[in-house]
Amino acid sequence: MSVKAYQRKLDVENGRVDLSHGSGGRAMAQLISGIFHQAFGNEWLARCNDQSAFDVAAGRMVMTTDGYVVSPLFFPGGNIGSLAVHGTINDVVMAGARPLYLSASFIIEEGFRFSDLRTIAQSMGAAARGAGVYIITGDTKVVERGKADGLFISTTGIGVLADGLDLSADKARIGDRVLVSGSLGDHGVAIMSTRQHAALRIEIVSDSASLHNLVAVMMAVGGSGIRVMRDPTRGGLAAALNEIAHQSGLGFRLQEAAIPVKPAVAATCELLGLDPIHVANEGKLVAIVAPHTADAVLAAMKTHPLGCDAADIGEAVADDHKFVQMATSFGGGRIVDWLSGEQLPRIC
Amino acid sequence: MSVKAYQRKLDVENGRVDLSHGSGGRAMAQLISGIFHQAFGNEWLARCNDQSAFDVAAGRMVMTTDGYVVSPLFFPGGNIGSLAVHGTINDVVMAGARPLYLSASFIIEEGFRFSDLRTIAQSMGAAARGAGVYIITGDTKVVERGKADGLFISTTGIGVLADGLDLSADKARIGDRVLVSGSLGDHGVAIMSTRQHAALRIEIVSDSASLHNLVAVMMAVGGSGIRVMRDPTRGGLAAALNEIAHQSGLGFRLQEAAIPVKPAVAATCELLGLDPIHVANEGKLVAIVAPHTADAVLAAMKTHPLGCDAADIGEAVADDHKFVQMATSFGGGRIVDWLSGEQLPRIC
Repeated sequence: MSVKAYQRKLDVENGRVDLSHGSGGRAMAQLISGIFHQAFGNEWLARCNDQSAFDVAAGRMVMTTDGYVVSPLFFPGGNIGSLAVHGTINDVVMAGARPLYLSASFIIEEGFRFSDLRTIAQSMGAAARGAGVYIITGDTKVVERGKADGLFISTTGIGVLADGLDLSADKARIGDRVLVSGSLGDHGVAIMSTRQHAALRIEIVSDSASLHNLVAVMMAVGGSGIRVMRDPTRGGLAAALNEIAHQSGLGFRLQEAAIPVKPAVAATCELLGLDPIHVANEGKLVAIVAPHTADAVLAAMKTHPLGCDAADIGEAVADDHKFVQMATSFGGGRIVDWLSGEQLPRIC
Repeated sequence: MSVKAYQRKLDVENGRVDLSHGSGGRAMAQLISGIFHQAFGNEWLARCNDQSAFDVAAGRMVMTTDGYVVSPLFFPGGNIGSLAVHGTINDVVMAGARPLYLSASFIIEEGFRFSDLRTIAQSMGAAARGAGVYIITGDTKVVERGKADGLFISTTGIGVLADGLDLSADKARIGDRVLVSGSLGDHGVAIMSTRQHAALRIEIVSDSASLHNLVAVMMAVGGSGIRVMRDPTRGGLAAALNEIAHQSGLGFRLQEAAIPVKPAVAATCELLGLDPIHVANEGKLVAIVAPHTADAVLAAMKTHPLGCDAADIGEAVADDHKFVQMATSFGGGRIVDWLSGEQLPRIC
């Protein structure tokens, strides 16, 4: 992100992005300086190089990336910018790592309002600062009208792992408990409600949030007893648990009655024919925890605002089929499969 | 990039991406397993987590990101995949760093051919292996037909810096020499020729390449005498030198006759009304080098295949206006400004 200060200011209130803002020339420098540097401002960006340098201690690091194509770009509880920061921080945090730095790549459709871009960038800056993370490098491309859908953002995060920590989807063991940090489906239903706002009266707010502090509390209590963590985004809890089941070579047995779902979310899901365990979350995690420490970890989660509705919803069991099974509230049972199709496109 | 092996195979020859391939469910796992794991295959991806972990030594690292929206996706000398790997590696390398790992975020338009995606992914894998770099984490999103333009890729790279190295755009000093590694404008003209293939008979090949080995040769000879390196992509040599001039608070005086441009590129530029110093390169660098070592660095560059046409094209001079000036072949002079508009949209 190469930039410098120019005398002529960008007309952020009334202007729109055009192809010249992706050209590598003066207009791009203005856009970056006037919007992104303002919003992210830190010593790394100020050096105006195509890359940023930082010091690391010897040890183990993690890297993760996610593209964000959510539609609409603004929704109750956030926008594509806050989501792009929270989501990527959470993927770093799910490894048990402390997030350090982010990069951000913007693909902007010609005609996009500067004022919307500023709002989104400011949300990114605020979300990053809230997690003690810096957006240290970036890139901006502009494509012609009709060749994108407003704005896409790809963020990449890196973080450091404490010594010896190795959470991975293949680490679940039979007898482990399945903990979720709160109510499921809020993000997906918030997006869906925004799209169909004429039909739905209840405003449901996305749970989009960075889980770094919640995880710190959990790790302090659970240590290596925490085997796997996942943030159940696309595909929801069902996809996350099916992945872990396959990687670890076991099954899960869940208690439907124990799974927290907000009444408004449950009602909306029923109306739309969705199952909350397939719906995306952006501020929740599922943890597979050794039985001896699960109660202590759960108690610790409940002390944190983002974990106050945490629950123990089931256990890992021996299963050659690697099925995720659910004992329903009515005393029956069913298999919780991955979705084979697409339930809610462009949810994140 | 969470994945596992499924029995049912993707019909890569005839199939196309649909929205289910971005759902976080079974179809996405198939796509990732069938195309990306095949192409990138490495131990990190095989662990199927949403992030990848790696060991680092204490020291200084760099991080860089770029979005790729080149149109067309396939062009003489490469495709969007090889470009996305070369380009991001080069941004790491321009800091004098050794590239280690890449992430890749794919935003795919519904209806995109699996076979094209495979070709592109294989090019990425080959480009990464060629530079000794691993694509260790990724993400795939699918948007509806008409909401993107085939495929966009954002790659992020990290690398390690040797002790004490600190190349930056503010490090140029008066008297430093300006070296370019070869002929200018090849990439931009190759893309432009592809778009207008009916009108242009000459096939010009993009210079897209990773510059890690060339830079290693240069650093071995030049050490801290190499003050700044830039790969002159969007905006070309003109943008790169104007940025360095402003950051370092000086000017540049170039000799037009010394700037290498291939005859076919020069002819095409003349036909299209372009100036090669404004046109994008994807396998070239400009280095600002202390005068005492510039000749040795230039000689070293010429020993490398990617530097065989390297040239000393001018010097850094005192200039309160921070102008890039060019002595023309006809004995005149002119100011080389940034482009204010967009000459060649979606060149990278």
